[in-house]
Amino acid sequence: MNPEIWTKWVEQDESVDDLQCNGLMIIQKKAAFRFGIDAVLLSSYASARKKDKILDLGTGTGIIPLLIAGKTEAYDITGIEIQYEIADMAMRSVKMNGLSDRVKIICGDIKEIDKILIGDIYDLVVSNPPYIKEGHGLSSIYETKAIARHEILCKIDDVLSTASKMLKTGGRFAIIHRPERLSDLFCAMRNHGIEPKEMRIVHPKLSAPPVLVLVRGIKQAKSGLKVAPPLVIYTDDGAYTREIHEIYAGGSLDDW
Amino acid sequence: MNPEIWTKWVEQDESVDDLQCNGLMIIQKKAAFRFGIDAVLLSSYASARKKDKILDLGTGTGIIPLLIAGKTEAYDITGIEIQYEIADMAMRSVKMNGLSDRVKIICGDIKEIDKILIGDIYDLVVSNPPYIKEGHGLSSIYETKAIARHEILCKIDDVLSTASKMLKTGGRFAIIHRPERLSDLFCAMRNHGIEPKEMRIVHPKLSAPPVLVLVRGIKQAKSGLKVAPPLVIYTDDGAYTREIHEIYAGGSLDDW
Repeated sequence: MNPEIWTKWVEQDESVDDLQCNGLMIIQKKAAFRFGIDAVLLSSYASARKKDKILDLGTGTGIIPLLIAGKTEAYDITGIEIQYEIADMAMRSVKMNGLSDRVKIICGDIKEIDKILIGDIYDLVVSNPPYIKEGHGLSSIYETKAIARHEILCKIDDVLSTASKMLKTGGRFAIIHRPERLSDLFCAMRNHGIEPKEMRIVHPKLSAPPVLVLVRGIKQAKSGLKVAPPLVIYTDDGAYTREIHEIYAGGSLDDW
Repeated sequence: MNPEIWTKWVEQDESVDDLQCNGLMIIQKKAAFRFGIDAVLLSSYASARKKDKILDLGTGTGIIPLLIAGKTEAYDITGIEIQYEIADMAMRSVKMNGLSDRVKIICGDIKEIDKILIGDIYDLVVSNPPYIKEGHGLSSIYETKAIARHEILCKIDDVLSTASKMLKTGGRFAIIHRPERLSDLFCAMRNHGIEPKEMRIVHPKLSAPPVLVLVRGIKQAKSGLKVAPPLVIYTDDGAYTREIHEIYAGGSLDDW
């Protein structure tokens, strides 16, 4: 494919990258936060259904709405992103991929969701939020990358508060986060009436400590957590495991 | 060893069983709740140190104090058990094993711990509490076995409330529970100021869903959970894994 045809969509400091998912492409900053395996895992773990009304909180470059659109037949997907520059890239990616009828990107603050969207109507809310607690690590500079990685403008509690407002009763919530934040995550879910129902821990290799954790919850469900077997990314040889290959090939992690 | 020598210690409906730990024996009801791998795992996971002042909440037949005494040099171990008949077995087991100077068994209700023991002084509190939520499963009969398995007289919240009262600041807490109760557990820990610091999920086999989870917390610590690699009980051939063999042989799970 001739990269020239994409140039009309992008700025000098941006690149167009192949999502390896039904020919979809994504616009990203060359130097800023770029999508990783977390978005790929979450878009599968969310197990979106065709008729779901879906909301992605802190959508960034729109990677999760794009992947869900590429992997499933869902046609009502909304992503919300606070940083205009990033939301604008997401909007262009949606148009560029011809997905404007299925994916909508909104620039706005999830903490003010009440002013932007109608609540209690979503079937599925997903989020790949900033992982790092504010005040930890190097987050003194309020720039694009720091905002995507650190809890500067969006904390776990904000994500859960918003998810709870937007989901209908029985609606599903899926999130990916760092294992060290698991108790923060579970307690925030509980506090906002989204009961943790399933967890899958992601290990780089089986013998290595985990780096990510996938959690599903249901609004106003009874308590009771199912812990799935660990998801392992690499074999001992450093190749992707069969399951990761299947996920990249569009496979869904097991259903809700 | 001639089983006759144990008869003076036991009643008709009791047996004396080998703990496979430095020659220690335990008195158990033939028909009631008998110790399982959970107690063995927790007694290792607790990583008791020689000078620790240790408290076991809901000690049952005293299995955890006995195993900690057998595996470590700890000499100040107290177990508290609400059911007199069971506490009495534990007391006899302690005497029978010649551990009366290191292990003390108290018959009492952990919910009234303030009236029984002095608080804020323990270095390590452990518990292998009833796993099953009250009202779930067959718990209509208030008998020995049901009380040990179901949250009839002791709920997660009671365990954490008591642990928090008894531990000194920076004191360590170790518990084993079912994975489906993980969010209940984390939230109860948080609510009582015992921060979850490490978790280890126990799978019967690697590909099978987990059956148990080991969690360590520290009183008044900062948040941040370390998730250890899964602990697998059986190999694909149905034999114990190397790690389980090591634990049975007295090995400690990695230190705090």
